[in-house]
Amino acid sequence: MSLTWEAKATDGYARAGTLKTAHGDVPTPTFMPVGTAATVKGMTADAVRSTGAGIVLGNTYHLMLRPGADKVASFGGLHKLMDWSGPILTDSGGFQVMSLAGLRKLDKDGVTFQSHIDGSKHRLTPEISVQIQHKLDATITMVLDECPPFPVTEEQAQSSMEMSMRWAGLSRDAFVPRDGYGLFGIVQGSVFPDLRRRSIDALMQIGFEGYALGGLAVGEGQEMMFAMIEATWDHMPADKPRYLMGVGTPDDLLGSIARGIDMFDCVMPTRAGRTGRAFTSRGIFNMRNARFADDGRPLDPGCTCLGCQRHVRGYLHHLFRAEEMLGPILLTWHNLTYYQTVVAGARAAILEGRLDSYIAAVRARWAEGDQADG
Amino acid sequence: MSLTWEAKATDGYARAGTLKTAHGDVPTPTFMPVGTAATVKGMTADAVRSTGAGIVLGNTYHLMLRPGADKVASFGGLHKLMDWSGPILTDSGGFQVMSLAGLRKLDKDGVTFQSHIDGSKHRLTPEISVQIQHKLDATITMVLDECPPFPVTEEQAQSSMEMSMRWAGLSRDAFVPRDGYGLFGIVQGSVFPDLRRRSIDALMQIGFEGYALGGLAVGEGQEMMFAMIEATWDHMPADKPRYLMGVGTPDDLLGSIARGIDMFDCVMPTRAGRTGRAFTSRGIFNMRNARFADDGRPLDPGCTCLGCQRHVRGYLHHLFRAEEMLGPILLTWHNLTYYQTVVAGARAAILEGRLDSYIAAVRARWAEGDQADG
Repeated sequence: MSLTWEAKATDGYARAGTLKTAHGDVPTPTFMPVGTAATVKGMTADAVRSTGAGIVLGNTYHLMLRPGADKVASFGGLHKLMDWSGPILTDSGGFQVMSLAGLRKLDKDGVTFQSHIDGSKHRLTPEISVQIQHKLDATITMVLDECPPFPVTEEQAQSSMEMSMRWAGLSRDAFVPRDGYGLFGIVQGSVFPDLRRRSIDALMQIGFEGYALGGLAVGEGQEMMFAMIEATWDHMPADKPRYLMGVGTPDDLLGSIARGIDMFDCVMPTRAGRTGRAFTSRGIFNMRNARFADDGRPLDPGCTCLGCQRHVRGYLHHLFRAEEMLGPILLTWHNLTYYQTVVAGARAAILEGRLDSYIAAVRARWAEGDQADG
Repeated sequence: MSLTWEAKATDGYARAGTLKTAHGDVPTPTFMPVGTAATVKGMTADAVRSTGAGIVLGNTYHLMLRPGADKVASFGGLHKLMDWSGPILTDSGGFQVMSLAGLRKLDKDGVTFQSHIDGSKHRLTPEISVQIQHKLDATITMVLDECPPFPVTEEQAQSSMEMSMRWAGLSRDAFVPRDGYGLFGIVQGSVFPDLRRRSIDALMQIGFEGYALGGLAVGEGQEMMFAMIEATWDHMPADKPRYLMGVGTPDDLLGSIARGIDMFDCVMPTRAGRTGRAFTSRGIFNMRNARFADDGRPLDPGCTCLGCQRHVRGYLHHLFRAEEMLGPILLTWHNLTYYQTVVAGARAAILEGRLDSYIAAVRARWAEGDQADG
């Protein structure tokens, strides 16, 4: 049987559940750290586990180019290669390829592109993408889709969506079912509620183990993004996981969880961690800021991450000023831990039917800020 | 009582012992990873501990400039700041300052220099260096000395050595004795045996908790370095630890241990790890080399480090090719583990009176190489 998702409780539109896969169970809502090239940047797999992450994401575009899908397969798959025995979701490669302006050519059957690494020519079709993800041994395979830019006309959004739906069917056909594995469809339609509903209908007719919302968080803003979730929340199947792709800030996560989203991925906590930006229960700090130089407090006093347990803010500040690798390591670790804490808190609140007050309390602490953070 | 060193066994000139300090005991011979700016580059303190390291080194020059000795003191000292509760040895800052060609001016009482970071002016004298190391809370303080370049005339070496010996006395006077802390003198005299013996005599007249050999590993070659250790081994006090500064390759360590050295520090394992060079029981590998791309074996099968336990060579190769931070992290971790393994193996061999055969076996494995390493 393919992977399943089981609801444990609902609170308004929000859902707490369990994703059951060949590589273990994951409580949802869940945030997936991004492990682009078979590594979450700057983190050992043990460190990723210690943040509370239950599932990670790999980027098919990067992995197919380097080290290559066949090579990953020859090493026993992505799980073994990167020491992550839990579930792994891989994207289709489409999003990255579409971003290769000038280096890619889209046609009705797929996309031909040049590697950003060595200029070599490659092709992705729905079938090829699914086959590559199979070789990577992805627990969750994503269909190849076109993610239109924002803004886009309704006509363009419609024809793009329709092509993506056709590709979704081809992806389904190409996918080899395996116990505890699954294929997710991706809802498109830009910011047009009617197109998004038609996209869901098309995907449901094909049938998937999960449904992702694509084409959001591309510049439309949080309000519009939330409106698009609301435009479709009653159309999504109740018994399947819902994945909002590429999102987002902790506040985006909370608002989306309240609107029924179960899964997220985003480079934000890892990328921010490498540049000195800390997500904390008291808001966002830039650790390079001179005001932290003498600060003898932990970054986020309640946090369980290594940095918060063992070091003071002044040390993190020093590491970033001195351009020491340990700064990005510890701050990535912290940010991922904070993301997991926020999402785990939301899950606990849903189970107890108090999500609204949980979200209000989290937002109040952000607004209150930190006394040293004036 | 100041820190002590206790002999457990000897094997020829080699010694196995225990360094007893305010921050715990360290079995010797021991290799100290270099934690220049209050961090061993790319490693959490937990990771450093897991390599088997018992004592780490900090660089006074870097720490006095950033974050600053007073700031380190305000955070409770270097141990607390960097989460290293074991002993820490700090150098005097002299070696780095002397390397600042054009930015420093030496006089008979010390050296005035400009920071490489912001051009600000600073001064190091024997007294100031000892005071800074006190503020850092170094378990082992090193005297300020002049390390002459190589080659140098005997006359220059002599006058430099005599100044260093005068400074050693001033350092001793400035040092505030604390239980389990200690001050080490540094033997100078370039490659002139007689000067080195006179240097030891001068230091012993002052009296130190340990004796370092300075001014070696600066280009004179392994043979000359070993000759200088041999020129002085009968002159060193038997009941004090002997520290060969800035050394070296695993082979340097073995040869020096056989010649009675107890302590080492070197950036080699950490720096090499960041650039893809692996020290292994089968010799030195460059993990960027294409021959490792398909290699499904652990880097060093007997090794207990995280990378060797969990990943294949092809993964390390991939990480370096993709310029992923995890490459330097895992390889630094491995190299430090390998260094500790070599040194711990030497200690065990000394205790059992079989150091020669241990060294011969280690060298034979290096020479044998690796079948994939053709």
